[in-house]
Amino acid sequence: MRILITNDDGVTSVGLLTLAEIFSKRHDVLVVAPESEQSATGHAITVRMPIWVKRVKVFEHIPVYATTGTPADCVKLGVEVIGEKNIDLVVSGINFGYNLGTDIVYSGTVSGAIEGALLGIPSLALSAPANEDFDYKTAAEFSLRFIEEFDLSLIEKFTALNLNFPPGQIKGWKVTRQSARRYADRFEARVDPLGNTYYWMYGDVIEDDERSDCDYIVVKQGYVSVTPITVFMTNERLLNRLREAAKREEDKIARRSCAQEEG
Amino acid sequence: MRILITNDDGVTSVGLLTLAEIFSKRHDVLVVAPESEQSATGHAITVRMPIWVKRVKVFEHIPVYATTGTPADCVKLGVEVIGEKNIDLVVSGINFGYNLGTDIVYSGTVSGAIEGALLGIPSLALSAPANEDFDYKTAAEFSLRFIEEFDLSLIEKFTALNLNFPPGQIKGWKVTRQSARRYADRFEARVDPLGNTYYWMYGDVIEDDERSDCDYIVVKQGYVSVTPITVFMTNERLLNRLREAAKREEDKIARRSCAQEEG
Repeated sequence: MRILITNDDGVTSVGLLTLAEIFSKRHDVLVVAPESEQSATGHAITVRMPIWVKRVKVFEHIPVYATTGTPADCVKLGVEVIGEKNIDLVVSGINFGYNLGTDIVYSGTVSGAIEGALLGIPSLALSAPANEDFDYKTAAEFSLRFIEEFDLSLIEKFTALNLNFPPGQIKGWKVTRQSARRYADRFEARVDPLGNTYYWMYGDVIEDDERSDCDYIVVKQGYVSVTPITVFMTNERLLNRLREAAKREEDKIARRSCAQEEG
Repeated sequence: MRILITNDDGVTSVGLLTLAEIFSKRHDVLVVAPESEQSATGHAITVRMPIWVKRVKVFEHIPVYATTGTPADCVKLGVEVIGEKNIDLVVSGINFGYNLGTDIVYSGTVSGAIEGALLGIPSLALSAPANEDFDYKTAAEFSLRFIEEFDLSLIEKFTALNLNFPPGQIKGWKVTRQSARRYADRFEARVDPLGNTYYWMYGDVIEDDERSDCDYIVVKQGYVSVTPITVFMTNERLLNRLREAAKREEDKIARRSCAQEEG
């Protein structure tokens, strides 16, 4: 396969370089990644500013491009320009730090995979615990087997797979749903030497989603969590409830609008 | 109600200021917004850097704070610190430019509302056409009536409403689903005076989603589109299909992993 690899930790990240090296044993790999760290960039794209791209010599046998853009920018450029619209699979990662539960909405790593999905290409996000001793080589080897053995044609349009690795030995993988894992925010106010107030923001994780098929729960059990995620965020159940409410309310508001314009 | 208003166009944007002024006629308004434009920031948060906050005098009667953060940062700070955890409604906008279809995944405006939803507060994103002549006053008056007449308790946890205004006269509002409206990317390569290659990225809109209840279709018909959107992005249908596939494949991969470790 022709595989585009990106990430949000930057082009020098060990997770990305290990993945590129191991995938390149059996596949045609292209790396397009941010030149510097872009964590918690969300699904940003660069608008009103151009994006610089330069080839960097990291490997003899793998083309690696560093850009001033976000992970989503890198995927757009990697698929449509540098990869000449000839990419079979987009892989984003391996990220230093999980993307579980509501992390997904903030994640640059996941946004790389979502961008691949928007371009109609099977796409994976790969994330590992934020642990300096994490064994990226084993995770990359697992990923290589996964992309070869998993039927990638099952992945629907506008959908990507979000994978998270357990900290220790991998027992296997399980299909999961995105959990409600989230954070209780904490803020620390300080005053800078010029007298201006600034805040450090951090958070304590809340893990109260007890459904056994949740992403973080299977990771704790030693499995790779595989969550199919879509770009379509419509809450279908609420959509139906609101349709009922709307029948009553929209008429009321519309009548008032008309009355005001006439009056 | 105590209403927190943010946006991604920055604290001086006419859409935000018009909204704050009109809401303040009948509600207690607090504005916390980026000091400069943050368009297409996606759902970014600021990590590893603090956020500066300063009060700016825009109105006599409405507290307005400008921050160095993203819209999501502004909502966290606005709800939990400046608003002292006493906010009834988060409103993000009125954005200069639509947030329809796949725009949602890139949108700073929508991320403000999603962040409110993550904090458990009813939240709305408001977006208008990118038209200098757009009548923000009428849209803000519509929004005021909407928040007062709509039963906000219907909005489920982890869900926000994404509103888009039509360009001309408002006929009313309709509950919609997020469409597959998206862009065909275009790139223009240039070389800077130092010899480095850079790319301008832009796109042509693709509107081929013909479902009559789609966001962009009702906007074209003159209605305000109201889409309930969730932070939970699991593709449930694919989840079920993958479970079937997983039963076969995970055993295969797990067996190989074990075999390798033993061998």
